[in-house]
Amino acid sequence: MSTKLLQGKKGIIFGALDEKSIAWKTALKCYEAGAEIVLTNAPVAIRMGEINKLSEMCGNAPVIGADVTHLDELKHLFLESMKHFGGKIDFILHSVGMSMNMRKGHHYTGISYTWNHKTLDISSLSLHKVLHTAWNLNAISDWGSVVALTYIAAQRVFPDYNEMADAKALLESITRNFGYHYGVRNKVRINTVSQSPTRTTAGSGVKGFDGFISFAEEMSPLGNASADDCANYCVTLFSDLTRYVTMQNLFHDGGFSFTGVTQGVIDKIEKGMQ
Amino acid sequence: MSTKLLQGKKGIIFGALDEKSIAWKTALKCYEAGAEIVLTNAPVAIRMGEINKLSEMCGNAPVIGADVTHLDELKHLFLESMKHFGGKIDFILHSVGMSMNMRKGHHYTGISYTWNHKTLDISSLSLHKVLHTAWNLNAISDWGSVVALTYIAAQRVFPDYNEMADAKALLESITRNFGYHYGVRNKVRINTVSQSPTRTTAGSGVKGFDGFISFAEEMSPLGNASADDCANYCVTLFSDLTRYVTMQNLFHDGGFSFTGVTQGVIDKIEKGMQ
Amino acid sequence: MSTKLLQGKKGIIFGALDEKSIAWKTALKCYEAGAEIVLTNAPVAIRMGEINKLSEMCGNAPVIGADVTHLDELKHLFLESMKHFGGKIDFILHSVGMSMNMRKGHHYTGISYTWNHKTLDISSLSLHKVLHTAWNLNAISDWGSVVALTYIAAQRVFPDYNEMADAKALLESITRNFGYHYGVRNKVRINTVSQSPTRTTAGSGVKGFDGFISFAEEMSPLGNASADDCANYCVTLFSDLTRYVTMQNLFHDGGFSFTGVTQGVIDKIEKGMQ
Amino acid sequence: MSTKLLQGKKGIIFGALDEKSIAWKTALKCYEAGAEIVLTNAPVAIRMGEINKLSEMCGNAPVIGADVTHLDELKHLFLESMKHFGGKIDFILHSVGMSMNMRKGHHYTGISYTWNHKTLDISSLSLHKVLHTAWNLNAISDWGSVVALTYIAAQRVFPDYNEMADAKALLESITRNFGYHYGVRNKVRINTVSQSPTRTTAGSGVKGFDGFISFAEEMSPLGNASADDCANYCVTLFSDLTRYVTMQNLFHDGGFSFTGVTQGVIDKIEKGMQ
Repeated sequence: MSTKLLQGKKGIIFGALDEKSIAWKTALKCYEAGAEIVLTNAPVAIRMGEINKLSEMCGNAPVIGADVTHLDELKHLFLESMKHFGGKIDFILHSVGMSMNMRKGHHYTGISYTWNHKTLDISSLSLHKVLHTAWNLNAISDWGSVVALTYIAAQRVFPDYNEMADAKALLESITRNFGYHYGVRNKVRINTVSQSPTRTTAGSGVKGFDGFISFAEEMSPLGNASADDCANYCVTLFSDLTRYVTMQNLFHDGGFSFTGVTQGVIDKIEKGMQ
Repeated sequence: MSTKLLQGKKGIIFGALDEKSIAWKTALKCYEAGAEIVLTNAPVAIRMGEINKLSEMCGNAPVIGADVTHLDELKHLFLESMKHFGGKIDFILHSVGMSMNMRKGHHYTGISYTWNHKTLDISSLSLHKVLHTAWNLNAISDWGSVVALTYIAAQRVFPDYNEMADAKALLESITRNFGYHYGVRNKVRINTVSQSPTRTTAGSGVKGFDGFISFAEEMSPLGNASADDCANYCVTLFSDLTRYVTMQNLFHDGGFSFTGVTQGVIDKIEKGMQ
Repeated sequence: MSTKLLQGKKGIIFGALDEKSIAWKTALKCYEAGAEIVLTNAPVAIRMGEINKLSEMCGNAPVIGADVTHLDELKHLFLESMKHFGGKIDFILHSVGMSMNMRKGHHYTGISYTWNHKTLDISSLSLHKVLHTAWNLNAISDWGSVVALTYIAAQRVFPDYNEMADAKALLESITRNFGYHYGVRNKVRINTVSQSPTRTTAGSGVKGFDGFISFAEEMSPLGNASADDCANYCVTLFSDLTRYVTMQNLFHDGGFSFTGVTQGVIDKIEKGMQ
Repeated sequence: MSTKLLQGKKGIIFGALDEKSIAWKTALKCYEAGAEIVLTNAPVAIRMGEINKLSEMCGNAPVIGADVTHLDELKHLFLESMKHFGGKIDFILHSVGMSMNMRKGHHYTGISYTWNHKTLDISSLSLHKVLHTAWNLNAISDWGSVVALTYIAAQRVFPDYNEMADAKALLESITRNFGYHYGVRNKVRINTVSQSPTRTTAGSGVKGFDGFISFAEEMSPLGNASADDCANYCVTLFSDLTRYVTMQNLFHDGGFSFTGVTQGVIDKIEKGMQ
């Protein structure tokens, strides 16, 4: 452990849009910890965001566009990445999600199913497709590590989170199920990190997001976890120090998940009731 | 409580194929408990099964075909049911599921996404569509009760259960999320019952099902719960005695869910290792 | 099911102090559902409370005092009850809890361990002692049902609930573990019901209880469950309609347990922050 | 992260008996990661074990005896440790547990309550007493980290684990509750690590332990986690990379906790049934 924590490791980071992104911070932290990185995102997100700036900060990491809903684009991504690295992938961050019904302002009870299908395809099945592609190419090293970002709405209802709650529940189920098979075959471990609400560019689109961030802050003994801290946590999960952790949903949320109420919340509610 | 438990209540039962079906048993038990019933299933299942026999046993309950993936057919079902009952619906059993990838023998790591979409649409989103339809028609009575059948593969991996594990996780998430909204608006409660593996006609199609039934029997302090017992449990959940239970996943499994191991399992594994 | 739900069943109800007690309501509902009842409580609680009034309302049910921490008093209780009933016990309600550290106003971080031992002995180990006694006397009928009342502080922190949170976690563990053994030997099932905060005489002693009741009401899609509704739920769990439910912790809380936040809570917090 | 992961950090390790102990491995890994260590154990365990050998391997770490059930001995331990370190404690490993009823071969349904009290006092309340002592002395640095070792019997029944299942459930509850308060006051985080069954000197005493280790190995996609791997995981939890993880129970078990069954288990059971 006197060397850098991810020295010699090679990883693919999905979903870095701009410097607020958790994926952005994670790419940086992994690079600082000694890893080599490939960056990827949807072509439209690459155009809109600033990923090339991130690439420079990560030692000119290749940026390879891929639509996560297309198996052939994912295949291209993995083949190019392995060619670049000269070998297999050691870790993957999946930070991908999008809800058309939320963007359009549809209430959960009146969603469009066409858009819901798209939401699940992009936000949940994308993880299955990434792993499916890697599995067929045998692209992940033994004892490799995959982390997907999720949110506690998969366990409890946060009404404004809408259909993304279902998407995250599905994502976590795919994590467990693919984690089983990839564990048995290659000792690859797959986990989700359930992060505090974070003021990313994507997160900001959610209706009522500010009120919700305040509530979570008030309800977490340590306060909300930042994107930087989340990136640090991902580094530990990609390292060899956590090799027997798999198929888990890991809360990184300052204790929110196991706090029923705080004095601060009760005080403010009582004040708000007057 | 000196009268029958569901006296005066009106319910729709989805998914009674033949006399092995949990939905079949539940329809009968509800009828015995004083309820009036409408039976529904997909048109093809109505043709293949024996639902008309069940209808007779339930006081000539109407049989109304509906494809659960089509909103217009669900709307027709609810309108016809309300016309028949002369009022709103008090309870609904959702016992619907189908996996094309399992039928075709695709391994979880190599599923077809076209079929997966169909699986999720039939097995999970169908519940959303049923509730969406009822919500728009305001078709469920205040304090009405909806139960969907699920399986513990939504929480832990049972490899042969394949993509249905993901479908059940999604179903349970929809239960929570729609349960929240319908609870707030109409005090309608929505729960899933997570039942022991049951030798239904549908269940029998699962690869390795016999070995799995034996394992569950050996691993449950009370043994596997039968379809008859599951029907009884549903009756309590439809009754007014359980009005504050909502958004829950309720294990009806003889204790399987909280048993880590039994002496019987250890003995057999040790014997099997020799 | 045309007869009363608990017709012919015999049960012991622990913990009815006065008419606000959940145990009081449960005794009444069981009696109405056709059961015969024995009432028990600690001698001091019998003197302070109004249990004799309840006895009259339950067909002159015997009142047998017993300190739940003393095996010999529990043995006396079971022997007398079996003599009275002319046979075994079919169901038991355990509604027992007391925290000396709360009464004395000790903060969780500075509890007295002597009192904590007493708290765990009365509130948690008492269930083990009841079951231990019944086990040795073979006093519970096959397929009998035991319910203990608990609270969600066993899963998530509610700071004012203090050491009772630990006591309830221990109670739920005992439920699972004894549930396993009693299930294997006699098909007896043992569950906890995790009830909304309830304005009982015991509950009222908790510091900050009013603020907490309001929070739970605001956070539950159906509102807080009443003691009456809890009693109804217990009746279903004592009945033969729920025979395969065991080793579970069952939330009876209007959806509180799976609600992450409500619009009402966010609104009041935002108002309270101004 | 180019420096060692625990450089400059100071920790107390409870429970290193001999080289099989998880605490032993953890002390070594922490020392290798740059930490300074104080070792502690019960006086009798210090005499029976080889802790002085470990002390030498950890740069002559002080060995300070303390009975974890005595507040005054814990106070002495903390005061001496702070004097040695010249400042506050950054991390603590609690690896303490003992069951008199298991040693004496008492069945769970017939435990001695005197011994059970001792079991809970040593295995569960000891964590409360350690934290209580540290809290009063303000002995833990802001953002310090406490880890206690636990086992999945706190969630599901493993019959041979006996009353230790209850002790671990209580330990995990104390972790959450003290974690809340210590998080609010000092940002100290407290978690449990739920480790695979491990062939330590203490573990070996458990009846049926060999059969159980084989079952867990067969049921874990990655196989059982070793004591060495557990030590690595603890290092990450003591580091600054995991600062927002608190009040969690973290499974370090090769996927056992979310695996319902494996093909290997089913095959062996079927073979064992013949």
